[in-house]
Amino acid sequence: MSSKKVAGPEIERLVQLLARLPGLGPRSARKATLALLKRRHDLLEPLSQALATAAARIVECPSCGNLDTVAPCTLCQDPRRDPSLIVVVEEVGDLWALERAGVVSSLYHVLGGHLSPLDGIGPDKLNIAKLIERAGAEPVKEVLLALNTTVEGQSTAHYVTEQLAATGVAVSRLAQGVPVGGELDYLDEGTLAAAIRSRRRV
Amino acid sequence: MSSKKVAGPEIERLVQLLARLPGLGPRSARKATLALLKRRHDLLEPLSQALATAAARIVECPSCGNLDTVAPCTLCQDPRRDPSLIVVVEEVGDLWALERAGVVSSLYHVLGGHLSPLDGIGPDKLNIAKLIERAGAEPVKEVLLALNTTVEGQSTAHYVTEQLAATGVAVSRLAQGVPVGGELDYLDEGTLAAAIRSRRRV
Repeated sequence: MSSKKVAGPEIERLVQLLARLPGLGPRSARKATLALLKRRHDLLEPLSQALATAAARIVECPSCGNLDTVAPCTLCQDPRRDPSLIVVVEEVGDLWALERAGVVSSLYHVLGGHLSPLDGIGPDKLNIAKLIERAGAEPVKEVLLALNTTVEGQSTAHYVTEQLAATGVAVSRLAQGVPVGGELDYLDEGTLAAAIRSRRRV
Repeated sequence: MSSKKVAGPEIERLVQLLARLPGLGPRSARKATLALLKRRHDLLEPLSQALATAAARIVECPSCGNLDTVAPCTLCQDPRRDPSLIVVVEEVGDLWALERAGVVSSLYHVLGGHLSPLDGIGPDKLNIAKLIERAGAEPVKEVLLALNTTVEGQSTAHYVTEQLAATGVAVSRLAQGVPVGGELDYLDEGTLAAAIRSRRRV
């Protein structure tokens, strides 16, 4: 479309907004817009409605920081989950990834990012105070820090661990090593070093 | 997310609808949903609004078949365009592609697809009658068939050409040959044959 007016400003705006979604560039945003315009009843209108509902109802869970349309969120309300374990993640997307994997059925706590002093993100900008409060209360026994194994993620884990010391709760972190299906030849040295350090007898 | 409930049904539905857009699969739809939820004010709400506007106002141009929020469409209303030439395309996306290239400043006519007898798409299902009507009226002098160079596109072009004969208007089609930047080694035989058949003296 570039600067030439191919369609009314409403359609141009739709293309521009869709192009801001991760995974869609200007070209695929045009394709998506065309698909929406052509499939008005079974795609455009339902999506419009779903977005309006989300915009009106989305809330951050006051307990764990998850995003949902109910508060407390669906996960915090689920009575089948083990309330003695809190899994701490950086972002909601990490929580979704763990849920997809279906390997843990605990409660969560979303920090909302990681410490990054250079970007002005100190502990007060993250959802840490609430975590300390939750971890110090019954029936929490363990806090599992499922943070990214990046420098920022690990320094955040270090800080959170220190803060949790006073609560007396057990603090754990994810194991590091060779990913399942991983080929040694393609792994970085840090991962290989961690895998050797944490080797286990068979 | 699979079948496990990670979030309320409204968010699950948003993921499912976004996954139906071309270019987005289930995984990228989740990423897009997360981006929308996190960027409520500068992305979710504007996109919701833009889709609602599109859903409410999108119309097919009664003259050329283009999709727009005004009727006649922005292009048909543009007085700077050459009304003596009608460029015929299969889909609105083709029209957008030509406009992006910025190589023609004519009016358009969108057929809405191509003839496909096996799928039950005959001439009556396409926007052909209106094209004949437009081509027979002043000030149209030429109809350029910019249809896909597929079997269906070309048989549609053949049919439309026959129908246009009675109007006395000049009918042309796009040149076929080697794409600009194309490497001969990678071109199919049909394209090479067409390029040789239509060779030009230098």
